[in-house]
Amino acid sequence: MATALKTSSWLRPSLDWLLIFVPIAFALRYVVAGRHGTALFIVSALAIIPIAGWMGKATEQLAHRMGEGIGGLLNASFGNAAELIIALMALRAGHIEVVKASITGSIIGNLLLVLGVSVFAGGLRYKKQTFNKTAARASCTALILAAVALVIPTIFHRTAAATPGGWTPAAEQTLSLAIAVVLVGTYAAMLCFSLVTHKQLFVRDDADIASEGDASNDAHAEPWSVKKALMILLGATIAVAWVSEFLVGAVEEARQSLGVTEVFVGVIIVAIVGNAAEHSTAITMALKNKMDLAIGIAVGSSLQIALFVAPVLVFASYLFPHQLNLEFSIPEVVAVVVAAFVTDQIAGDGESNWFEGVQLLALYIILGLLFYYLPSAH
Amino acid sequence: MATALKTSSWLRPSLDWLLIFVPIAFALRYVVAGRHGTALFIVSALAIIPIAGWMGKATEQLAHRMGEGIGGLLNASFGNAAELIIALMALRAGHIEVVKASITGSIIGNLLLVLGVSVFAGGLRYKKQTFNKTAARASCTALILAAVALVIPTIFHRTAAATPGGWTPAAEQTLSLAIAVVLVGTYAAMLCFSLVTHKQLFVRDDADIASEGDASNDAHAEPWSVKKALMILLGATIAVAWVSEFLVGAVEEARQSLGVTEVFVGVIIVAIVGNAAEHSTAITMALKNKMDLAIGIAVGSSLQIALFVAPVLVFASYLFPHQLNLEFSIPEVVAVVVAAFVTDQIAGDGESNWFEGVQLLALYIILGLLFYYLPSAH
Amino acid sequence: MATALKTSSWLRPSLDWLLIFVPIAFALRYVVAGRHGTALFIVSALAIIPIAGWMGKATEQLAHRMGEGIGGLLNASFGNAAELIIALMALRAGHIEVVKASITGSIIGNLLLVLGVSVFAGGLRYKKQTFNKTAARASCTALILAAVALVIPTIFHRTAAATPGGWTPAAEQTLSLAIAVVLVGTYAAMLCFSLVTHKQLFVRDDADIASEGDASNDAHAEPWSVKKALMILLGATIAVAWVSEFLVGAVEEARQSLGVTEVFVGVIIVAIVGNAAEHSTAITMALKNKMDLAIGIAVGSSLQIALFVAPVLVFASYLFPHQLNLEFSIPEVVAVVVAAFVTDQIAGDGESNWFEGVQLLALYIILGLLFYYLPSAH
Repeated sequence: MATALKTSSWLRPSLDWLLIFVPIAFALRYVVAGRHGTALFIVSALAIIPIAGWMGKATEQLAHRMGEGIGGLLNASFGNAAELIIALMALRAGHIEVVKASITGSIIGNLLLVLGVSVFAGGLRYKKQTFNKTAARASCTALILAAVALVIPTIFHRTAAATPGGWTPAAEQTLSLAIAVVLVGTYAAMLCFSLVTHKQLFVRDDADIASEGDASNDAHAEPWSVKKALMILLGATIAVAWVSEFLVGAVEEARQSLGVTEVFVGVIIVAIVGNAAEHSTAITMALKNKMDLAIGIAVGSSLQIALFVAPVLVFASYLFPHQLNLEFSIPEVVAVVVAAFVTDQIAGDGESNWFEGVQLLALYIILGLLFYYLPSAH
Repeated sequence: MATALKTSSWLRPSLDWLLIFVPIAFALRYVVAGRHGTALFIVSALAIIPIAGWMGKATEQLAHRMGEGIGGLLNASFGNAAELIIALMALRAGHIEVVKASITGSIIGNLLLVLGVSVFAGGLRYKKQTFNKTAARASCTALILAAVALVIPTIFHRTAAATPGGWTPAAEQTLSLAIAVVLVGTYAAMLCFSLVTHKQLFVRDDADIASEGDASNDAHAEPWSVKKALMILLGATIAVAWVSEFLVGAVEEARQSLGVTEVFVGVIIVAIVGNAAEHSTAITMALKNKMDLAIGIAVGSSLQIALFVAPVLVFASYLFPHQLNLEFSIPEVVAVVVAAFVTDQIAGDGESNWFEGVQLLALYIILGLLFYYLPSAH
Repeated sequence: MATALKTSSWLRPSLDWLLIFVPIAFALRYVVAGRHGTALFIVSALAIIPIAGWMGKATEQLAHRMGEGIGGLLNASFGNAAELIIALMALRAGHIEVVKASITGSIIGNLLLVLGVSVFAGGLRYKKQTFNKTAARASCTALILAAVALVIPTIFHRTAAATPGGWTPAAEQTLSLAIAVVLVGTYAAMLCFSLVTHKQLFVRDDADIASEGDASNDAHAEPWSVKKALMILLGATIAVAWVSEFLVGAVEEARQSLGVTEVFVGVIIVAIVGNAAEHSTAITMALKNKMDLAIGIAVGSSLQIALFVAPVLVFASYLFPHQLNLEFSIPEVVAVVVAAFVTDQIAGDGESNWFEGVQLLALYIILGLLFYYLPSAH
């Protein structure tokens, strides 16, 4: 146990050190101003990571205060708030491709990178790690369903576009909207399933989370007051939104100077930034041999993106000039489906080992290579 | 048990009430005549449902009399006779697209709608329902094989069409015919497996079927004589064929006045009509916590369509002016493959709950939306 | 046991009888010379089968001498040496399509034909055969990963080709090269997993292999000396390379006179020739109810092709005028993915029966039909 605690206190505080980039980002944006787009992009990206971590902590504390049901709902709704805010900012700025790519990227990043590193790191310490097969299978099935749902608008687009006079953007938008409604409905049903009717399958070991919290943030050992949690949540949300605007504003310049495409920025860079907090928590849990939690975080976060964040972005886009639909490119669709199936294959038997982590990471690298070499659609 | 019996007597007789539509269909066709195509289509569809139910009952009774081996073969061959007859009528009238779509629709309808409603309804009553994992897996594997086989002619068509001078309709027809032969051979092997060499895996609980029969049809508590069963089977077959002709004759007019495509008519409407009897039986079984039977009906019926009805239609089409091949559209192929994989994922662990039913239904709705918005290929 | 031994001595020696074709091949090539391309092709193909078998035996004997670790590595590296040599000869002669097709064909041939016949034959003798589920699942997961990796360059090609000005052969080659590096890295990790950290999962029953060796080759009952094994390995390697050159040189003429495409030659014919030795061993093991070994041979050989032989061919192609990339045709990609998924579905539950063998074979026949009817891309 002592080793595990040491590991966690080595891993977690590292994120808080990144808070140093928050003032640097503001300075670059308002003091230096103008022509340092790439630097601003990188600094903003690094600055968002710890603030998103604090949003997560505040949500966790509020959820703890609210009791199981409402708390679970809160976690489920705000768990990916940072991704949602970044995506909303990008949507407002008309970076539709980046938004779509960040949805895909968050899903494959959580499934392959976060889960891959967790399984690998945990597997180096323990020869075999086990977890609840039924819960993992239930999540993976929902994941496969979500992946398939995201394929449908693409199938529509391809088929309808090949039909003379058949394709209308309006029909495509309506189809995406209708699918978004079905996805949100499925998400509501899943919450009811996991928080109400079958909650015993998804036991969150509160004691573990708490002890882990103690270890990594000694200053915050006692639970926060509701007021403190709310204030921190509000402050962090404003800060994430603000810095996200810098990030989004600098995306075009950074993209060009780094020589990568919009899709690569969304799929790889934005997705890693938005999920850094999940990443660090999942690895810590895996190193403590709590694979149920590690898998719950990685798969649960992907599910939330697919069933909640993506539909909410479709709905929210009606407030902006450019509407978002759910038609992804073929490589994105393949990446999501493949990530869902391989995760299911690996998590479906209730056991993991280091080689399974290597396989998830190998797939992530291969997909990263694909998106890196893929030419821009513009 | 009392509740279950009540439920079943509420559900089953409802189908017989639909017999009222049989004379209405004949009246509309021969007395009123002409210009009521849409009404005739709807009335004929409703009239086929109870007659198909009686065909099923007669087959069941005959099978019961014939003993296990021959009886199983009878059930396996005539279990989807209604779908087969409707499809033959549509084939004769040259509605090739409707026939293909009704094959796809029967498969996804049984897997997603029938199984989805059964799992959902059963799951509302019982927290967890269990069933024989080995039998479910064996059926699902055959299903995946069948889904893959139906993909091959489409792959051929796409690839060959992209090869200059490479594609000939004759080669495509020969390939479909050869695949149909392999599918029927696999079906024969499956019957040998499930009725002869490994029949203990597929126990049909005859006592249950019988008691269920008692409850829902008090008038027919004692087994029918072979003569009676044969007469009813013959009468119902003629009636289904006759009314199917009305249905097929009115399809074009109905399609236009309802504003839907041929594919939507086949995938959703014809498929629901043809499978209504399976539907009601599977739900009744799920409500009685007999998930082995519910899954057996839904998955078994899909398998029969893919491995037996589809090849037989290919063979039979040589009697008609237009030959049927097994080249489906991309959306149809995706729908079948996805339905087979998701069913396997859900049924493969030998357990079900209400949320799994919701997931199957969500996928059915999403696929229905796809086919609804998809423009006609003509 | 006696029956099993008799079966094996009936099966194995049959391959050695084929050695008669070695002198015939040389005679046809150097004595008769010229215009008997098709005969030379067939005779060379038959001649390679037993020499490849002797390469396998020599590798096995060396591996036995070297001890577990190095021995396993040797087996893993030279297990598919015959395929590798044939492919290198074809690569040198510029038959890029044949090489790619033989990679695909070796994978599906091992998974569907070798495993299918083994499961079927074993299932005829034993009602149910069981094997280690964890080991089978681990191999199948690696297989799915490999299949997915081979899909990526094709996705890239299709997507990039549809982007105006986006596609460059150089980018495609670099992507293939990078993926090949990831695949070899995964292979190294897999060897470390199966030979070092988790070797107890992959127990090779040496006693069984030995007793099987005794039975089939009474003359070689005592282990070979290292020198003898090395000499035979060297001699057989030279012979395979030599006869492969005849085979490759006659491929064009044989192809035309048999009326089949290059892809069919690679996928079906070359693949069967290269895997004949695996074929005979896997069946023998299945008939002895040693399904762990039968599955290990079939799945392991496929994995070796995908994770080791294919990347090595990509690297080696830089020595020749034509570079090899990993962009396969859509039918090849579909065949590999489908074969991997169906194998996983069938092997993933740790049980097999004759009908599962029929299903694997049915899929092999269907894919064979596809490649037979598919027009040549040229």
